[in-house]
Amino acid sequence: MNHPSNDTQAVKLTGADIAKHNSRESCWVIIHGRAYDVTEFLPEHPGGPKVILKYAGKDATEEYEPIHPPDTLDKFLDKSKHLGEVDMKTVEQETKEEDPDEQDRQARIQRMPILEQCYNLMDFEAVARRVMKKTAWAYYSSGADDEITLRENHRAFHKIWFRPRILHDVEQIDLSTKMLGTKVDIPFYVTATALGKLGNPEGEVVLTRGAKKHNVIQMIPTLASCSFDEIIDAAEGDQVQWLQLYVNKNRDITKRIIEHAEKRGCKGLFITVDAPQLGRREKDMRSKFSDVGSNVQDTGGDNVDRSQGAARAISSFIDPALSWKDIPWFLSVTKMPILLKGVQRVEDVIRAISAGVQGVVLSNHGGRQLDFARSGVEVLAEVMPELRRLGLQDKIEIYIDGGVRRATDIIKALCLGATGVGIGRPFLYAMSAYGLPGVDRAMQLLKDEMEMNMRLIGCNNVNQLGPEFIDTRGLSMHTTGVPSDTLGLEIYDPMVGPQEKARL
Amino acid sequence: MNHPSNDTQAVKLTGADIAKHNSRESCWVIIHGRAYDVTEFLPEHPGGPKVILKYAGKDATEEYEPIHPPDTLDKFLDKSKHLGEVDMKTVEQETKEEDPDEQDRQARIQRMPILEQCYNLMDFEAVARRVMKKTAWAYYSSGADDEITLRENHRAFHKIWFRPRILHDVEQIDLSTKMLGTKVDIPFYVTATALGKLGNPEGEVVLTRGAKKHNVIQMIPTLASCSFDEIIDAAEGDQVQWLQLYVNKNRDITKRIIEHAEKRGCKGLFITVDAPQLGRREKDMRSKFSDVGSNVQDTGGDNVDRSQGAARAISSFIDPALSWKDIPWFLSVTKMPILLKGVQRVEDVIRAISAGVQGVVLSNHGGRQLDFARSGVEVLAEVMPELRRLGLQDKIEIYIDGGVRRATDIIKALCLGATGVGIGRPFLYAMSAYGLPGVDRAMQLLKDEMEMNMRLIGCNNVNQLGPEFIDTRGLSMHTTGVPSDTLGLEIYDPMVGPQEKARL
Amino acid sequence: MNHPSNDTQAVKLTGADIAKHNSRESCWVIIHGRAYDVTEFLPEHPGGPKVILKYAGKDATEEYEPIHPPDTLDKFLDKSKHLGEVDMKTVEQETKEEDPDEQDRQARIQRMPILEQCYNLMDFEAVARRVMKKTAWAYYSSGADDEITLRENHRAFHKIWFRPRILHDVEQIDLSTKMLGTKVDIPFYVTATALGKLGNPEGEVVLTRGAKKHNVIQMIPTLASCSFDEIIDAAEGDQVQWLQLYVNKNRDITKRIIEHAEKRGCKGLFITVDAPQLGRREKDMRSKFSDVGSNVQDTGGDNVDRSQGAARAISSFIDPALSWKDIPWFLSVTKMPILLKGVQRVEDVIRAISAGVQGVVLSNHGGRQLDFARSGVEVLAEVMPELRRLGLQDKIEIYIDGGVRRATDIIKALCLGATGVGIGRPFLYAMSAYGLPGVDRAMQLLKDEMEMNMRLIGCNNVNQLGPEFIDTRGLSMHTTGVPSDTLGLEIYDPMVGPQEKARL
Amino acid sequence: MNHPSNDTQAVKLTGADIAKHNSRESCWVIIHGRAYDVTEFLPEHPGGPKVILKYAGKDATEEYEPIHPPDTLDKFLDKSKHLGEVDMKTVEQETKEEDPDEQDRQARIQRMPILEQCYNLMDFEAVARRVMKKTAWAYYSSGADDEITLRENHRAFHKIWFRPRILHDVEQIDLSTKMLGTKVDIPFYVTATALGKLGNPEGEVVLTRGAKKHNVIQMIPTLASCSFDEIIDAAEGDQVQWLQLYVNKNRDITKRIIEHAEKRGCKGLFITVDAPQLGRREKDMRSKFSDVGSNVQDTGGDNVDRSQGAARAISSFIDPALSWKDIPWFLSVTKMPILLKGVQRVEDVIRAISAGVQGVVLSNHGGRQLDFARSGVEVLAEVMPELRRLGLQDKIEIYIDGGVRRATDIIKALCLGATGVGIGRPFLYAMSAYGLPGVDRAMQLLKDEMEMNMRLIGCNNVNQLGPEFIDTRGLSMHTTGVPSDTLGLEIYDPMVGPQEKARL
Repeated sequence: MNHPSNDTQAVKLTGADIAKHNSRESCWVIIHGRAYDVTEFLPEHPGGPKVILKYAGKDATEEYEPIHPPDTLDKFLDKSKHLGEVDMKTVEQETKEEDPDEQDRQARIQRMPILEQCYNLMDFEAVARRVMKKTAWAYYSSGADDEITLRENHRAFHKIWFRPRILHDVEQIDLSTKMLGTKVDIPFYVTATALGKLGNPEGEVVLTRGAKKHNVIQMIPTLASCSFDEIIDAAEGDQVQWLQLYVNKNRDITKRIIEHAEKRGCKGLFITVDAPQLGRREKDMRSKFSDVGSNVQDTGGDNVDRSQGAARAISSFIDPALSWKDIPWFLSVTKMPILLKGVQRVEDVIRAISAGVQGVVLSNHGGRQLDFARSGVEVLAEVMPELRRLGLQDKIEIYIDGGVRRATDIIKALCLGATGVGIGRPFLYAMSAYGLPGVDRAMQLLKDEMEMNMRLIGCNNVNQLGPEFIDTRGLSMHTTGVPSDTLGLEIYDPMVGPQEKARL
Repeated sequence: MNHPSNDTQAVKLTGADIAKHNSRESCWVIIHGRAYDVTEFLPEHPGGPKVILKYAGKDATEEYEPIHPPDTLDKFLDKSKHLGEVDMKTVEQETKEEDPDEQDRQARIQRMPILEQCYNLMDFEAVARRVMKKTAWAYYSSGADDEITLRENHRAFHKIWFRPRILHDVEQIDLSTKMLGTKVDIPFYVTATALGKLGNPEGEVVLTRGAKKHNVIQMIPTLASCSFDEIIDAAEGDQVQWLQLYVNKNRDITKRIIEHAEKRGCKGLFITVDAPQLGRREKDMRSKFSDVGSNVQDTGGDNVDRSQGAARAISSFIDPALSWKDIPWFLSVTKMPILLKGVQRVEDVIRAISAGVQGVVLSNHGGRQLDFARSGVEVLAEVMPELRRLGLQDKIEIYIDGGVRRATDIIKALCLGATGVGIGRPFLYAMSAYGLPGVDRAMQLLKDEMEMNMRLIGCNNVNQLGPEFIDTRGLSMHTTGVPSDTLGLEIYDPMVGPQEKARL
Repeated sequence: MNHPSNDTQAVKLTGADIAKHNSRESCWVIIHGRAYDVTEFLPEHPGGPKVILKYAGKDATEEYEPIHPPDTLDKFLDKSKHLGEVDMKTVEQETKEEDPDEQDRQARIQRMPILEQCYNLMDFEAVARRVMKKTAWAYYSSGADDEITLRENHRAFHKIWFRPRILHDVEQIDLSTKMLGTKVDIPFYVTATALGKLGNPEGEVVLTRGAKKHNVIQMIPTLASCSFDEIIDAAEGDQVQWLQLYVNKNRDITKRIIEHAEKRGCKGLFITVDAPQLGRREKDMRSKFSDVGSNVQDTGGDNVDRSQGAARAISSFIDPALSWKDIPWFLSVTKMPILLKGVQRVEDVIRAISAGVQGVVLSNHGGRQLDFARSGVEVLAEVMPELRRLGLQDKIEIYIDGGVRRATDIIKALCLGATGVGIGRPFLYAMSAYGLPGVDRAMQLLKDEMEMNMRLIGCNNVNQLGPEFIDTRGLSMHTTGVPSDTLGLEIYDPMVGPQEKARL
Repeated sequence: MNHPSNDTQAVKLTGADIAKHNSRESCWVIIHGRAYDVTEFLPEHPGGPKVILKYAGKDATEEYEPIHPPDTLDKFLDKSKHLGEVDMKTVEQETKEEDPDEQDRQARIQRMPILEQCYNLMDFEAVARRVMKKTAWAYYSSGADDEITLRENHRAFHKIWFRPRILHDVEQIDLSTKMLGTKVDIPFYVTATALGKLGNPEGEVVLTRGAKKHNVIQMIPTLASCSFDEIIDAAEGDQVQWLQLYVNKNRDITKRIIEHAEKRGCKGLFITVDAPQLGRREKDMRSKFSDVGSNVQDTGGDNVDRSQGAARAISSFIDPALSWKDIPWFLSVTKMPILLKGVQRVEDVIRAISAGVQGVVLSNHGGRQLDFARSGVEVLAEVMPELRRLGLQDKIEIYIDGGVRRATDIIKALCLGATGVGIGRPFLYAMSAYGLPGVDRAMQLLKDEMEMNMRLIGCNNVNQLGPEFIDTRGLSMHTTGVPSDTLGLEIYDPMVGPQEKARL
């Protein structure tokens, strides 16, 4: 925590001082050993006043920490409200209630499988689900509406099958490629995901270190738990990082962010274009109710609580008016390559080329924004033939993200024409369950899988991959079966195998 | 209850008077404190005599109330059979048997989730299923035959996927549209559903109030629990209502209903054309057997009980001979716009245009009539291209209903060319679980979802929506998978994730 | 039982006499009070010798009865082996072991739902499954191999959806049609199914009576439990019956059967052409092992027991050499219309027309013969357009059977061009569970459903039905989904609705 | 065990001598009563050093035996490390810990169903799953990645449906055919599978005997548990065997193997071309952790254990550089017909013809190599029409393997144009559960099924089979349904059948 506050004080505040301000009328809270007056800020809090009032007059650090970057208070709370240091010895330690859920979680942590038992990216998610805090899990794992796009993202890869070639010398396998001019060891990058400290107290810098080890690029999220500079500082040597950008309604702030990123060496600017408003994620919203308890009786319609989970709380600054007209301005304020993240149809890829950007990410924001948005890989299969038809395939770099879990997913995307793929949640889960070793192993597993599968498809390097190695005929069929006749299902007497003899 | 009966009487009847008439030979019942001689009416009762005989000589109000509009007795029972007031103090209070099902239900009501925990329209249904009476739930939730169309209705929307556009300024979102000339705040209306008092003692007027609050139109059902006038009276200001009409075999009655509706200000007449006979709904029929108990031994084929649930009981007056030849007559008796509700193929939409009606509702009656009828949205995808081909797309307003649960469903319908969608059961469930606040929240949730999703698809208002924003290629495939080989499924040893360590 | 045996005897045999002959070397059994020496017959018994030896020296009536028509012993055992009457008082009554399965079944029979609780044809099957003997259920319900065609048969109807017309006067509904010149009340017939006494002690005559009541045709099976004459005798008035024929290797026997049937008034001869060998039905085969018990240790490969369930036991006489060359002979020996039952592709329908037969049944033998044979209704959708293209659609009557459970199934078949449909198992189940009242109600339910659905599709009689009322685009797609990724399914955290408050 | 070792010794070693060398620094083990110094070999062990160190100073025979062919030590361990005989009486018998899993397994073996209860090939797998050791089951049953191709292999056959012909004389059925000039009784062969002793102590020779009995060909695996010569010696009379070959990086070894095989009479050389590296099979890898126990705490990322199950342990010699350039060399060193096993697209079949080989096996290695490789039968449906178009269909013999479980599967492959099919796992399971009688019965069941189904499809012999008998329109659609809306599924109240009366 670096608090560049200039308030110096002779006498520290005491717990008793703070405890007096425990109401909506006067609300002080302690964060990281310092007191803040947030009375006037209450109505503006993107997460709603209720969650702050829970800590009125108390130490709020534990709840505050993972979802606010370190520079939040400096940025959003006037200096006059920074009340100074608190003598923490005088602050009453709250004896936490026994929380049976938390006790169960601690027990599960004790029984965690060892890292070597994780053989694939799904395994980290299985462990993370069991050992993460419920609300953190809800934030990471949730998607929009019915989470149909969330699941479609990986499932779409299942509709693409291989046509491997045989008897091609595959002794040497080279997984490396170039992304925006940077050579990487394997064609994926760590895509931007918010609130890393929900999963690990160190936050996004863990991913920075993992990316370094495997020589892949990390995309730094706007909504990181760590500050931007912390993440940049965690990079070593010539390690390359990109910046993911939510565009602020205040373009001065945006400009400052971009210029700062460029100065600090970021090699790519990925403007998120699929999130004019951050999505409703009901699993995330629902997870909040554990706090409220079971004795709330009020069902009045007027008292509808609009607090809608972590996602909505942190995103109110995003500009819904962002449009194609803004692109020239972005091109004018930076020399970093600019890419649009969240493109979802071929018409917009073509327009992106006209607009002069260097690339696009075909993405639906990990299924967190518009449900029934198609998967990136399906859009890719729509985009590339059209670009080739128009002779535009070399004018732009195309990336996809969403649902990548297996090296075969990466290979399929590259066969279709992607330059690389972004991977987000799997590394978050690996980090949440096992920290850096988890991230390390997750990336190594992908490399092992990829080397194997490059051999099995009969290609030595990613340049050899192409559409002739895949069969995508089933990809674009969005069907559901006819609903079953439950009566008929219930009466069907299923066949059974040979039965054991009765026990004696 | 307004009983405009003119029988005045000096001495009230007593419970003992009534109790003597407790047989098929002489059957009196008490309803709302008045006695009626229904002996001669028994064989004509659409619900069968059995259910009345259960209450012979007793107070039948509780069972009678929700499924008979207030004016039923006046309409269908000769005044001479209205026996006058009963001194209710003299009527023996039946001590109800302890009903374990009902006790469980009451316990579930105690544990009901608070309204704020409902985040989408399905949530109200989940709560309603737990807190409604079994027979009421069965009536609302049931569909025809195997309920395949019932489920297909929502599932059909799952086959339509989005092609959102990006970088379109979506700061301002306007959800309003016009339906038959009326401006509404969001493009849905509350469609007609029968027997509202099964879910809430106040009945359909709750929906009237919800519709007013959100400025949407309510379609008043012929088979409401409230009387038509009660529902009209519940409207406020310039609130717009439509009338759904089952056409009576006796056209004089029908004419009277239409003229009355027009006089009372209804702005649209929706003639139901998919229900020449009301459907068999087996779930509804089956729910009746809880009354009969377990000791009935008779399995004789001749004694088949034809009582078939609430649906059949209330619909014997509907005219199965209604045909295109009747349309000119309807056009002649009213100035209200006339729409056909329940059209199911493009040929009939074209014929409706020729017949001079102002609109159609593509609908299969909520899956309650013909099983394997296609969903409204699928028919819409058949209708609109053909209308455009013929240049007829502006000659008629097209609505759909059935299975709408998410704002994305509404957007998909509008992209395909619908003017608006009707929503029925979800509001019934919201009302049954939480009353008006439930209906209010349900509508608000739809608005919230819709505003969000308009942004995410990249459109500012409903006029911008069009077929280029959706991918419907999978929509019309009605397939079922090859039946599984249960032997093979049984022996497949599914992969598992990393296992926890054993407990110590 | 009519035993037209001419052996008269002064002294009856005693139980002790019989009991001496209890080995493979000398094996006597009692059936219906008479003794038979089956020593030499043992190796020829189609069901294998083992099952007979179980009863060597004892009364075998109970096991023998349901699977042998009354004339079996006269036909297959030389008169010299008919040993005469037994004084049954001298035969030791075997005290049956307590069989817990049978006790459970008897308890289930006590708790049987009343007939009125059956609302559709599946309901009878649900009850029959619970109250039938395990072996009888296994024989009726089983199909070939993995029972995939068995299930596809009904499921194929689920791929056909309706395009109903509206505003057609449907007050009058006429379900009647003509089959081979006979007017029937509804377009189905009771198709031939074997071994009716497994389900009901009276056997097939129960179906005869049901068919009479509803004026539909019964097809008499070759492998009935009742004798042919018993079934003919059970018909009343001008009731029409057809004969299903398995062709015997000995054409003299076949000729005798045909001539007898014609003489007794049968109005149609349906030659089964899909069963040159009767199918392996593993569920049926497996059900036999309950007898063998758990202490059999022998796993020697040489001792493979070829007894393969009831189906194989009763069918060894069928001629696998039957071919198109035989058709002229059939045409020469009878004036009854001849139809081929079990045709499965359009080429063979066309050939059947050339061969001069009057009709075909598109059928896969209820899924009991070749697994992955297509359903009759799918073959129908292949056949009719081709016949129409060739102008042959009026040259032949086309029937289908297999999987018909709902009136909508019948309507779909008629829309596609079938003259009628055969229904088998559903009536067997209704009979097994409830006897004649069950059959009666099953037929009545079909009529009720059919009248309703004719109204809802907008047709007054079966002649109006045609392909314009259905959408069959999904019918011929035999797909299975991509196998699921069980790891991914396991870790997906499904969305849940609002949770109840905790119990206090 | 034949140890052709030439070390003679006066005094046998004692258990105490060996027990001293129980560390990584000096590691001796006993195998089959002889001691070996494996200290220097530890780092080279393909299965990793850990598993050897478990037995340092002890008898390792039981673990060693099933996964090492008898000649392993002679081939891979320098003679100087062969330390000579051990006096086994002096070796301490380890008292094995009670292993509850193993006790359960033994109990399951006691209750094994008798062989006659296996009615199809799946049944053997069901039994084997219950009675095999967990690690052995994991090795046999596992596949690559998510095991999607593993399951698709059989499921693909489900997408092919029959168009049987009728009235074709099928009294005589001849199942025989020719494979590479050898007449076989039924068109399948026993394909090569590794490590037979995991399932049965005798190993692959059991399959040799089964193949002889039914006159089918056995393909001998490179990675057999028995030595090549043992398997050849087990053949009787003119029994035909083929050799499956993994090509060694050292072509001298490969040449020696080929020449030896030809000399010993092998009639076909099947070069595996789909395994430049043996697959990751996670189920196999995961099964190893039972040994490690639950108290391992180390989760350090650097200490990643790369031991990856049996598959990887035994395959490090395979040459990933094998290419089309090597084919002429193979043709030059043998007169055996050469076939490529593992071809997966039509282009490579055409190239194989040009390269002069006599055949190909369309195979994905039983789903054990590349996940999302298509099934052999689907590739076959791609290959044959193209070969016919090019007039090449008679230039090569085409086999498929993978997922064959039913005779209908074989018939479908032959209809499409295959000469025959390979069957692997089913016979392994039959052998593992029941030994030779199991293999015998499995083959007999296939013959019984095949004879039946040839009759039912209307063909007398395999030459009559052709594409006109099948419908493959659904075969190449690799789709998954739209992910379900779990909220909607949860609230749907499924229909139920009639309910039993309550128990008294």
